[in-house]
Amino acid sequence: MSAYRKLFDHFEHVSHLEHVQAISSWDEASMMPVGGGAVRGEAMATLGVVIHGLKSDPRIGDWLANAEDEALDGEQRANIREIAREYGNATCLSADLVKHLKLASSRCEQAWRVMRRDNNWQGMAPLLTEVVGLVREEAVMRSECNGLSRYNAMLDTYEPGMTTERLDPLFADLKDFLPGFVDQVLEVQQREPVLSVGEDFSIEKQRELGLSIMATLGFDFEHGRLDISHHPFCGGVPDDTRITTRYFDDNFVQSLMGVIHETGHAMYEQGLPKAWRTQPVGRALSAGTHESQSLLMEMQACRSIEFLHFMTPVAQRVFLGSESNNPAWSVDNLHRIYTRVERGFIRVDADEVTYPLHVILRYEIERDLVDARIEVSDIPDAWNQKMQQLLARGTEGNFANGCLQDVHWPAALFGYFPTYSIGAMTAAQLFTAAVDQVREIPEAIRNGNFSPLLGWLRDNVHSKGKLLGYDELMIGATGEVLNTDYFKAHLRRRYLGG
Amino acid sequence: MSAYRKLFDHFEHVSHLEHVQAISSWDEASMMPVGGGAVRGEAMATLGVVIHGLKSDPRIGDWLANAEDEALDGEQRANIREIAREYGNATCLSADLVKHLKLASSRCEQAWRVMRRDNNWQGMAPLLTEVVGLVREEAVMRSECNGLSRYNAMLDTYEPGMTTERLDPLFADLKDFLPGFVDQVLEVQQREPVLSVGEDFSIEKQRELGLSIMATLGFDFEHGRLDISHHPFCGGVPDDTRITTRYFDDNFVQSLMGVIHETGHAMYEQGLPKAWRTQPVGRALSAGTHESQSLLMEMQACRSIEFLHFMTPVAQRVFLGSESNNPAWSVDNLHRIYTRVERGFIRVDADEVTYPLHVILRYEIERDLVDARIEVSDIPDAWNQKMQQLLARGTEGNFANGCLQDVHWPAALFGYFPTYSIGAMTAAQLFTAAVDQVREIPEAIRNGNFSPLLGWLRDNVHSKGKLLGYDELMIGATGEVLNTDYFKAHLRRRYLGG
Repeated sequence: MSAYRKLFDHFEHVSHLEHVQAISSWDEASMMPVGGGAVRGEAMATLGVVIHGLKSDPRIGDWLANAEDEALDGEQRANIREIAREYGNATCLSADLVKHLKLASSRCEQAWRVMRRDNNWQGMAPLLTEVVGLVREEAVMRSECNGLSRYNAMLDTYEPGMTTERLDPLFADLKDFLPGFVDQVLEVQQREPVLSVGEDFSIEKQRELGLSIMATLGFDFEHGRLDISHHPFCGGVPDDTRITTRYFDDNFVQSLMGVIHETGHAMYEQGLPKAWRTQPVGRALSAGTHESQSLLMEMQACRSIEFLHFMTPVAQRVFLGSESNNPAWSVDNLHRIYTRVERGFIRVDADEVTYPLHVILRYEIERDLVDARIEVSDIPDAWNQKMQQLLARGTEGNFANGCLQDVHWPAALFGYFPTYSIGAMTAAQLFTAAVDQVREIPEAIRNGNFSPLLGWLRDNVHSKGKLLGYDELMIGATGEVLNTDYFKAHLRRRYLGG
Repeated sequence: MSAYRKLFDHFEHVSHLEHVQAISSWDEASMMPVGGGAVRGEAMATLGVVIHGLKSDPRIGDWLANAEDEALDGEQRANIREIAREYGNATCLSADLVKHLKLASSRCEQAWRVMRRDNNWQGMAPLLTEVVGLVREEAVMRSECNGLSRYNAMLDTYEPGMTTERLDPLFADLKDFLPGFVDQVLEVQQREPVLSVGEDFSIEKQRELGLSIMATLGFDFEHGRLDISHHPFCGGVPDDTRITTRYFDDNFVQSLMGVIHETGHAMYEQGLPKAWRTQPVGRALSAGTHESQSLLMEMQACRSIEFLHFMTPVAQRVFLGSESNNPAWSVDNLHRIYTRVERGFIRVDADEVTYPLHVILRYEIERDLVDARIEVSDIPDAWNQKMQQLLARGTEGNFANGCLQDVHWPAALFGYFPTYSIGAMTAAQLFTAAVDQVREIPEAIRNGNFSPLLGWLRDNVHSKGKLLGYDELMIGATGEVLNTDYFKAHLRRRYLGG
């Protein structure tokens, strides 16, 4: 048997265990009764150790070396590259560090729930200091493995190939553009009041509308489902993609856009290359690319006036029983609701205009933390300053709505935040290219026909998996590497009308 | 580290993987979209191989040998005994046979769905012959491992310690008693017509009633849930027990008793000894004991007039909106519905009086098949003859309602059928002892208070796991080993009033 075949079989075996891991994780978040949690935690930890053991099996190193000399085609070579990356990620950290990180971040994450509620930065700081210390060790080990700088080594685990050197000019441009742009938008929107659509929306009807819109978008229900969880997510596996939402009985707007967002993620999974689904090269390209698919559906396609032309009568029939001329339920009013901009404290509640400012703030702080240019004790002041500078909102003493609002750092996820805005920019650039290349897309969306858009995404993004690198994919799909032009143009068009 | 500790840790590790296996199996039956099936099948097969590899790890043999000389208490010795049993079951079959059995039974089971529908015995026979040939090899290998006769070696995998030598006199007694008894019951019931309760029962209301009765029985919803599947079952793990039912919108009677049956299974799982849940000795004692817990709830407790006194007004409120004097909804009429006896063709639809006759017929045939005293080609005639003898129903040419009705043989499950009736007899004997020892049980059930009954079951059955053998458990709980007296007395009392 060739070394390549051994690698293929080995990672197919791994993918089977990752399948039950994915389904069990989904179950934990959406189905499991609370009393099952303790034993489930132990079971998942053991499964994680088994999978890690397989991914760091020393034979992989030998097989990779031997596969160098074998006759392989381009896709097989790409698979080898991704296998080497997974093997590297699995082996570059010492077992000791992995264990300490897991313990410290688990402790910190659990404490965070209480500390955030109690606005208690003093209680949080020592726990977070411990996590940051270990993350710095992680960054050093990763850096020694792949030759990247420390923060880049962390970023690379979520967004392969991305670096601070590439991000900094993109983010500088947005920092330059957005604050003034927000001023302009707020001035315009002040003159356009929003009417309330009411405050009583049964969960059954919200679910009915969500399922109907998922079908419109092209979600494949033969290979997936919609359920409820506290934090919405997209899980499962490409052949069985599980998305979740949560419903508020006084507001359908938020849950519906959440379902659309997760459907974007899910359709990416469902469109990954069938022939490569058991292999590393068959996975989604990066966290940012994944987010681009959810944001393309949510922000580009479905908060558009075209989509709201289609969706408004559908929502009227579901919630009002029939179509209606009630001005609160007009296309224009729903569009105003779905494009409202506000300078807020909270990232997860932010609109698409202010969102990158929340991300840039976090990026700058976490980059300096990992590179040891600042310490945990510097976070609250840095946060307050940057919030004032970017969003004109001071957070002095307001930790709960400031630097304690996200779970990422307590959970030791450093290097993840930038992928949200990489996703937003990627979404704008891809959507612009799609509409350029397939001119009927906007009109099709207005008719609730997502086939032209989904077909383009399947061809240019989904079916590529990790066969291409990010830059190759973007050049192939849009003719250029990632830049801020399309995102800014999108914002100008939607919020200032040109 | 002591050899015992190594065994303990190893099997704790196994239990974690069995946990995700159990949850994934539940998901497959109750949640998975149809398109996920192919990949799930592969994932579960790989997980099964991993678990089998761990259970047949040769170090277990060494650890078992070394643990012999270690100072262990009685419960630890019992755990060693059960570990040795699992190790024996995992290692006594050749890998080659396991693979062939899996392939042949999977092929036969899939064909069976079509062949049964088409009443096609000729199509089934060669496939079943292949399975029976492999099962005979399995029986020989098991027999060589544990020194039992061939059929006993199969029976022992489901019902440790049970043998044909012990079963034959029990079944002979029932064969002697039941046919004439059925005649008497049918004569009595002919004079008691049953009124229809209607044919329109919303699934929401059926679910509401099911959940309410589960709570009454003592199901712990912090550690379990109720869902829907095509074939009702009890799955999951003791800390997170998942039961399922299916609903018919023209009939609430069947689904409700199904929920009660599975709740009996579930409460056994939920009551297994907490300290031993990761270990072989902490599992349910046997298939028959498990069935005794479901049948005790369903047949002994909940088809009783006492329980129907409690349940009737509850069901009236759910389905009729309030209590009612409608004679169809009287306690007596519901009791007649829930105790109706009929000589039918189909085991799964049979009442508790005729059920053992269906089981005995299958037991006699499968025992002779495994021991090669008859061949697959003899099955239809044997079935027809025994049906005529035991249930006065000929099945000549009627394979779909005769020897093709069950999935067990196509699925290579030989030795399982007797456990249904072991369960029924065990249930009667345990329930009689419980009522003897805790006199308020019937009155408590009449008031919807299951605490006295559940408390007795927790103490005498659930908390024992496999710490005791079956005979020890029965003597401890009832003062004697299994016999037919209590089952017969129960039938006489319920169906002939004394």
